[in-house]
Amino acid sequence: MADRIRLGMVGGGKDAFIGAVHRIAARIDGEYELVAGALSSTPEKAQASGAALGLAPDRTYGDFREMAIRENRIKGGIEAVAIVTPNHMHYPVAREFLKRGIHVICDKPLTSTLPDARKLAKLAHESDALFVLTHNYTGYPMVRQAREMVARGELGKIRVVQVEYPQDWLTEAVEQTGTNKQSEWRTDPERSGAGGSTGDIGTHAFNLAGFVTGLELEALSADLQSFVPGRRVDDNGHVMLRYKGGARGMLWCSQVAPGNENALRLRVYGEKGGLEWAQEDPNYLWYTPFGEPKRLLTRAGSGARDVAARVSRTPGGHPEGYLEGFANIYAEAARAIRAKQAGAAIPGDVVFPTVDDGLAGVAFVDACVRSSARDAAWVKLA
Amino acid sequence: MADRIRLGMVGGGKDAFIGAVHRIAARIDGEYELVAGALSSTPEKAQASGAALGLAPDRTYGDFREMAIRENRIKGGIEAVAIVTPNHMHYPVAREFLKRGIHVICDKPLTSTLPDARKLAKLAHESDALFVLTHNYTGYPMVRQAREMVARGELGKIRVVQVEYPQDWLTEAVEQTGTNKQSEWRTDPERSGAGGSTGDIGTHAFNLAGFVTGLELEALSADLQSFVPGRRVDDNGHVMLRYKGGARGMLWCSQVAPGNENALRLRVYGEKGGLEWAQEDPNYLWYTPFGEPKRLLTRAGSGARDVAARVSRTPGGHPEGYLEGFANIYAEAARAIRAKQAGAAIPGDVVFPTVDDGLAGVAFVDACVRSSARDAAWVKLA
Amino acid sequence: MADRIRLGMVGGGKDAFIGAVHRIAARIDGEYELVAGALSSTPEKAQASGAALGLAPDRTYGDFREMAIRENRIKGGIEAVAIVTPNHMHYPVAREFLKRGIHVICDKPLTSTLPDARKLAKLAHESDALFVLTHNYTGYPMVRQAREMVARGELGKIRVVQVEYPQDWLTEAVEQTGTNKQSEWRTDPERSGAGGSTGDIGTHAFNLAGFVTGLELEALSADLQSFVPGRRVDDNGHVMLRYKGGARGMLWCSQVAPGNENALRLRVYGEKGGLEWAQEDPNYLWYTPFGEPKRLLTRAGSGARDVAARVSRTPGGHPEGYLEGFANIYAEAARAIRAKQAGAAIPGDVVFPTVDDGLAGVAFVDACVRSSARDAAWVKLA
Amino acid sequence: MADRIRLGMVGGGKDAFIGAVHRIAARIDGEYELVAGALSSTPEKAQASGAALGLAPDRTYGDFREMAIRENRIKGGIEAVAIVTPNHMHYPVAREFLKRGIHVICDKPLTSTLPDARKLAKLAHESDALFVLTHNYTGYPMVRQAREMVARGELGKIRVVQVEYPQDWLTEAVEQTGTNKQSEWRTDPERSGAGGSTGDIGTHAFNLAGFVTGLELEALSADLQSFVPGRRVDDNGHVMLRYKGGARGMLWCSQVAPGNENALRLRVYGEKGGLEWAQEDPNYLWYTPFGEPKRLLTRAGSGARDVAARVSRTPGGHPEGYLEGFANIYAEAARAIRAKQAGAAIPGDVVFPTVDDGLAGVAFVDACVRSSARDAAWVKLA
Repeated sequence: MADRIRLGMVGGGKDAFIGAVHRIAARIDGEYELVAGALSSTPEKAQASGAALGLAPDRTYGDFREMAIRENRIKGGIEAVAIVTPNHMHYPVAREFLKRGIHVICDKPLTSTLPDARKLAKLAHESDALFVLTHNYTGYPMVRQAREMVARGELGKIRVVQVEYPQDWLTEAVEQTGTNKQSEWRTDPERSGAGGSTGDIGTHAFNLAGFVTGLELEALSADLQSFVPGRRVDDNGHVMLRYKGGARGMLWCSQVAPGNENALRLRVYGEKGGLEWAQEDPNYLWYTPFGEPKRLLTRAGSGARDVAARVSRTPGGHPEGYLEGFANIYAEAARAIRAKQAGAAIPGDVVFPTVDDGLAGVAFVDACVRSSARDAAWVKLA
Repeated sequence: MADRIRLGMVGGGKDAFIGAVHRIAARIDGEYELVAGALSSTPEKAQASGAALGLAPDRTYGDFREMAIRENRIKGGIEAVAIVTPNHMHYPVAREFLKRGIHVICDKPLTSTLPDARKLAKLAHESDALFVLTHNYTGYPMVRQAREMVARGELGKIRVVQVEYPQDWLTEAVEQTGTNKQSEWRTDPERSGAGGSTGDIGTHAFNLAGFVTGLELEALSADLQSFVPGRRVDDNGHVMLRYKGGARGMLWCSQVAPGNENALRLRVYGEKGGLEWAQEDPNYLWYTPFGEPKRLLTRAGSGARDVAARVSRTPGGHPEGYLEGFANIYAEAARAIRAKQAGAAIPGDVVFPTVDDGLAGVAFVDACVRSSARDAAWVKLA
Repeated sequence: MADRIRLGMVGGGKDAFIGAVHRIAARIDGEYELVAGALSSTPEKAQASGAALGLAPDRTYGDFREMAIRENRIKGGIEAVAIVTPNHMHYPVAREFLKRGIHVICDKPLTSTLPDARKLAKLAHESDALFVLTHNYTGYPMVRQAREMVARGELGKIRVVQVEYPQDWLTEAVEQTGTNKQSEWRTDPERSGAGGSTGDIGTHAFNLAGFVTGLELEALSADLQSFVPGRRVDDNGHVMLRYKGGARGMLWCSQVAPGNENALRLRVYGEKGGLEWAQEDPNYLWYTPFGEPKRLLTRAGSGARDVAARVSRTPGGHPEGYLEGFANIYAEAARAIRAKQAGAAIPGDVVFPTVDDGLAGVAFVDACVRSSARDAAWVKLA
Repeated sequence: MADRIRLGMVGGGKDAFIGAVHRIAARIDGEYELVAGALSSTPEKAQASGAALGLAPDRTYGDFREMAIRENRIKGGIEAVAIVTPNHMHYPVAREFLKRGIHVICDKPLTSTLPDARKLAKLAHESDALFVLTHNYTGYPMVRQAREMVARGELGKIRVVQVEYPQDWLTEAVEQTGTNKQSEWRTDPERSGAGGSTGDIGTHAFNLAGFVTGLELEALSADLQSFVPGRRVDDNGHVMLRYKGGARGMLWCSQVAPGNENALRLRVYGEKGGLEWAQEDPNYLWYTPFGEPKRLLTRAGSGARDVAARVSRTPGGHPEGYLEGFANIYAEAARAIRAKQAGAAIPGDVVFPTVDDGLAGVAFVDACVRSSARDAAWVKLA
């Protein structure tokens, strides 16, 4: 066990969905050991949460700054920290750890504001520590394969990108009735950022499309809505995309589409073929070489490539899911951290979303909000 | 047999896909008998096509005007005509028959230009004859049911409409290589109209969304592309929709999306529930009352309503398809024609797309082209 | 119209599901004209049904024998007859027409008893008239393609056949409560035959498996059940199959499986590949060459063969269904009838189920009943 | 970390698929720490595998007996052992640990022979230690829910069970060409047992059907095949099932069905409704109350019950997979172990497969082999 990476966590106390996900993702491959935490901004809750997770009392902190300072000083202090707070805290928290050389694994979106995102990106670039952003959907094996197929030119030049991310959990005004804890901060622009569905899930969609296609955005035109009366952020967004080089796309994100749980879906069409992938059935990748029958490529099955196999744990037909995809981000981070620690170069095949991806995501939200305010005018990412 | 409606056809000679479809649709319920035709603008082809269909030689015309004149004069002349020519001929052909009181069943889009559409609409309104437009997808039983469910308020107020119609048959420049007959006129703006994919299939998508939701368009913002070099019309279109009353939508049409044969799909989300329907699996309608499990409603099965049953011919599990949906347009038209002939009112439950739907469709294409030319500015239907 | 085949019908009066199906199937391709009928054994109902269908009063018969005699005598009498009565009448009705040289298109199963089946087979073989059995599922384009792929050896030697045909409409005792007309004769051994689900749908499954694989049965072991108290025939059947040459199979038929409408499904596995086809989604054929990704072959789309295209009416993505598959049986019969009438050989590519297929089906039911009575002992087809 | 359950492992060295699965399953919830192992019967391989897993050299054993003896003696020795050897070693290994009071988590099938299974069951019953069998498919949340729905009578009395488990990885003679390590022992009756596909996967199917329905087998009739020339065990099995109380079933297992990766599927039909579940899409459970539309119940989504939610880690739409289902067996075992250690009763809602389930599974294989040898005679479980 001695060589597990010592991990701390900021945020992720009781009832926090994403904190638990990070902890499982960190455990799956046995590469990390959670040894410290500032799990809540409420001291009693922080203490209780730490105890529930079996953290030593003296490494259960009520304050993330104190944690950064002390963990940096003690022998056997944490080597990496997972940041799973509401968005507006990502920047101040990350700063404390980055500047002490502690690697950061941070939930998305990068920050709640574009200025914060820029400051954080600058900080991360200047730091020796790694900054890993958990755009976890890039960890799915078949997403990795899709990316490689595009990169190898198997689809030909990309023409059309269709990406969507509908959910339905905000169909009603749960943030106002207090019936859903998660909804409170996620619909509060002070904590979540100016984008609602665009920030929470639109960024995932935008990131996924870019990750798979390798395309860079030229401009977007966004029409955002807040359908639920009293809602302070968008809960539905329609976006048209123009990529550099001529590809065009559409992006739809929604939290008010009944019947959709977490239906992120990407479709990419090029001159020579098409690909379709859906997050809720992640072990499948549909591939059509133009003029031939559609093929069902399966993770670790016939048609799977090395790039998918490398981040798979089970044979074909033994489905992997959200947690394994998330764990792949942690596993890639672990390889990078160990390389750093060994003074070696990060292996060339290590892939994880970076602070620049995060900055692009926040710029995407900012552009959506600006465009929508100008009646869906075309805007560039700032 | 005596009381079958005597049907003529203009267009639909050999190799014409849609003419054969109309003929089968007219036969399925035994309500029509094809007795005359001007099946091609090439006289020899017209003659050969008529013979192949068993038409009497003296009712096989080389010219539609001649056909209209003579059929109007002879005893037992046609009572209705199906127009299945390229789009630019819809107006001149329909005019000849309408003005002689012969009912018209016309393929979509209504015309190739907006002025023609307006003239035709005026003509049709003034005529005693019926004008039926074959937006055939409105004939599917589960589309009828979706429409009724929305009308009854089962989805609550509609917020979001997602409609798409991707195909892949124009992925390559088949109209330039002469390898696909259909592609030639459908990509020729003189014959097809200013819209390519928008006119050929985008109108279907636009019509279907309106048919099911009952919503009227306020404005649209369109970004059209011609991906194939040398193509003279759009082959991919991205459109954002604003409906009166606050609903918002996206429409995607494409003929360059490999892996999509004829993948018209509609999704509608309201305050209380969601619906999903896909043309390639038309016997299914997915319905999610918000907060409850998704239900698979099947044509003529559990969950099917009277409105779907009335236009079904087989029990649940015995799939109906494209031709039956198309035949429903013909069957509805037959009911209307017989009512007209009997001097009775058209029954209240008869539903078919009208010349006004067709005018809206041509205005939609026109608006898409105008908007796209102005960098996707918001425009209203003219 | 002169050259449409003049068709009569026995059975198929009001409320008879399958009669309406035959009529539509006969109309779709314009090859037949229904001109005479003995549509019910109740004279008034026969008369009313004939009138509803537009038959001339003097060709609306109250008795099938009278119809056979008169139609054989009059000028322009019927050339073919469709028999859509309950099973026990197939033999006596077919006899009257066959012996007068009138072609017979008969619903399945061939007869209600094995002796009747044998007599009918003998009669049909001796007659100059054609005998066509509507095992309609063999008319689906992708079933035709599956058959050809097996015949060409693309799956290698066949090892395993899995065929099933579950429904749920007899889950409750509807034949006893009188709430379902169809259920009355179909669960009455006097009219339906000794097999219930085995006769009504098991024969379809058995026929389909043999049609696609070309395999001949060696022996079967059947365990039949009547789950609904008071039911007089089986409503669920489990059958193990041993084919000549070593292939093995399982067949399941059920009318008490809630959630299944008409879920005929065939899966065939050979040394080199596998095929899967489901009747409720008939435009798709799943094909897996061993060691390669699964392919979705679509009717008239990429991967469709000539043999499927020949019996298709619409392009890929424009779904065909049950009625089109059924119509293909009628279309093939029309080609055979016309060849006969021309004194020519029936074209080699004409495919339809014969009286021998029907005899095999009745022998299958007989064997199931015998095996089940002997505790699922292995029995051969008698 | 102090209170993680100290786990040892026997088997599971390099290249062993199932050992890695057990280790991940043990890690996911942070309840176990792997601290000792006899990972291979080849000492060098055992050593290398232990090192690769970070085990202390003095707790990396070349022999499982030595490991049992020493771990039982040392302070901080293992509290539980995972047995992931070939089947024939399950009994001798389990015996050594059970008799020392070390809890056993053992892979399926229980043993390679029925006498061994009986001895092991006896031993387990007499031991204070727990015996947990990893019929992992019972750990899937929607399987738990299916079970509860049946138990609550929501399907009414069960009539029909359809369970199947096809794979294709043994379509060719890979065990003879040496191209697949796994295939060698799994097709060797000395190590695997008399059943091939029946033992390897048929037992899973049999167990799953019993787990969900609560039905007990009365008798079975089996027809087993070895399609691949030279194969020493069955690679395809057809089984008819008679359950006590009148329910009937069919079970198909195959390792030679191209296009099937790991396609375990269960369908259960009762007087009031039906359920369908497929392992490759495990987050979905299809439920049809008779006469109503089919519903798609999703893990942790609308329609999910407490019994599913309790063993879920992520919200609806964030798919869980094979490893999470497997981890649920480990999590339940952990709860039982901790209760034992605390001297408390095992909580009533803890559910895991027991040695008796394992004995039933081995008896199932034995019965299949006996029945098949007697031409598919009905036999009872011995």
